[in-house]
Amino acid sequence: MTTAAKIAVIGLGAMGYGMAKSCLRAGHEVWGTDISPDPVERFRAEGGQPGDLKDVAETLDIVVVSVLNADQTSAVLFGPSGVARMMKEGSVVIACATVAPDFARDMASRCNDCGLHYLDAPISGGAAKSAKGQLSIMAAGSEKAFEVASPALDAMAENVFRLGEVGAGSAMKAVNQLLAGVHIAALAEAMTFGMTQGVSPEKFLEVIPQCAGTSWMLENRGPHIAAGDYTPLSQVNIWPKDLGIVLDIARDAKFSAPLTAAALQQFLAAAGMGLGGEDDAAVAKVYARNASLDLPGDD
Amino acid sequence: MTTAAKIAVIGLGAMGYGMAKSCLRAGHEVWGTDISPDPVERFRAEGGQPGDLKDVAETLDIVVVSVLNADQTSAVLFGPSGVARMMKEGSVVIACATVAPDFARDMASRCNDCGLHYLDAPISGGAAKSAKGQLSIMAAGSEKAFEVASPALDAMAENVFRLGEVGAGSAMKAVNQLLAGVHIAALAEAMTFGMTQGVSPEKFLEVIPQCAGTSWMLENRGPHIAAGDYTPLSQVNIWPKDLGIVLDIARDAKFSAPLTAAALQQFLAAAGMGLGGEDDAAVAKVYARNASLDLPGDD
Repeated sequence: MTTAAKIAVIGLGAMGYGMAKSCLRAGHEVWGTDISPDPVERFRAEGGQPGDLKDVAETLDIVVVSVLNADQTSAVLFGPSGVARMMKEGSVVIACATVAPDFARDMASRCNDCGLHYLDAPISGGAAKSAKGQLSIMAAGSEKAFEVASPALDAMAENVFRLGEVGAGSAMKAVNQLLAGVHIAALAEAMTFGMTQGVSPEKFLEVIPQCAGTSWMLENRGPHIAAGDYTPLSQVNIWPKDLGIVLDIARDAKFSAPLTAAALQQFLAAAGMGLGGEDDAAVAKVYARNASLDLPGDD
Repeated sequence: MTTAAKIAVIGLGAMGYGMAKSCLRAGHEVWGTDISPDPVERFRAEGGQPGDLKDVAETLDIVVVSVLNADQTSAVLFGPSGVARMMKEGSVVIACATVAPDFARDMASRCNDCGLHYLDAPISGGAAKSAKGQLSIMAAGSEKAFEVASPALDAMAENVFRLGEVGAGSAMKAVNQLLAGVHIAALAEAMTFGMTQGVSPEKFLEVIPQCAGTSWMLENRGPHIAAGDYTPLSQVNIWPKDLGIVLDIARDAKFSAPLTAAALQQFLAAAGMGLGGEDDAAVAKVYARNASLDLPGDD
């Protein structure tokens, strides 16, 4: 039996809510905050601690930052009511957003200046795995940061990869997002191409997962297209952001990434068609429109 | 115990040799032919039948055409010494090359005119699975064609997908090749991008296969790059050909396929660098050269 830790989770979106619940389930005292009041109320009703973050910040052992991007990460840590300046010496920030490695290093340095440990800890696995405490975390930071963060990491993750110094977690996440985004667009390209040749989405999903052309994303997102169900488990809007981060990093490194660039254009077209809030499998609608195809679910 | 069938395998390359051996192992009488005498001699030494194809053609039940492309398929069936005009009525041609669906339909029509059945039967799985009789075959044709072909199909394949009328097999194969080619290029793009950010190929292969960014090709070809081993299990030269077929079909269908087009350019650059005979994972060398990176195995 380990001692209960005091943990705050900042950002109760699809991923953060599951992470906060996983920490609760492990027996910790958990505060949940969000810019929207709804998930905060819901989380308290399900066992979260009451009270304002600023009133308890100096008692916390761990702050998990589960927001959308670098700007939000910077704001919640060092903005006008930033939590980093309120936390006690020796506590740890676990930063989960997809950001550039240089940004992670900058945040770590500023946290260290406040006497805090910093874990560069992007996550992978989706909302369902988040809810079950089965995330993969691509984590990087000092031994001490891992040690202080361990109650939250143990509660939230099935796999914690220890990747080295701060920045290495964000680098691996960028690599994963490059692949994941390209594979979703490739799935959409292949499935709609097949439709022009008489290969139905059902037949595609019966055959391709057993062949060399399969991918994790194909098997996960393919059924959404075949069912015409674009309920957003992961939104189209994620990809202009994440592939944009990848291409920003790549440009700084003078690295030519033509497949990533092509995939980004397809997601941008999807967003431009007004599909930003749909499931990312909706990138298939860009291909379908360009080829005058009717997808499953079209009337 | 089924009766031994008389089978010829035309084309004893990496795939065809294994298919011929699998038919032998299943107890059939098998003739193997190739433009090169070496694999023919070797196959006879391992139990293949002696004698010229033209002398036995009219006795054959099944001819498996395992050549590189449409031109070679057309030549071995209907060229100056084409086998289709020599085969007996009611026998079957199993055509395994990656070709356009329209070409498959044309070959089937000409074979039918000669009184032959035709199976549009592209294969997937690689040389190792071919040798073990564990291929996946994306097969299309009449019930009767499947029935006559079954001794060879049973011997060569673990999965035989029955996809409908002739053309449907080639269509599914094109879909699979689109994905497989894009995924190999995406692997190379992601692994070399990671190297610019301090992610080593070893670390990449430790983490990504457990994350959403993985693919069958990534797990199969990634180790080749990490080991710097470009022994050609599947050659770079396959991809300008196969992605070219995909894009030809796509253009005819007015289908825009930007990821496939980007991947093709990377394989063309690899071929242009003189790497056409290396393993297809050598497309990573295009990325590495463009980013002034040293890959594993570089001196």
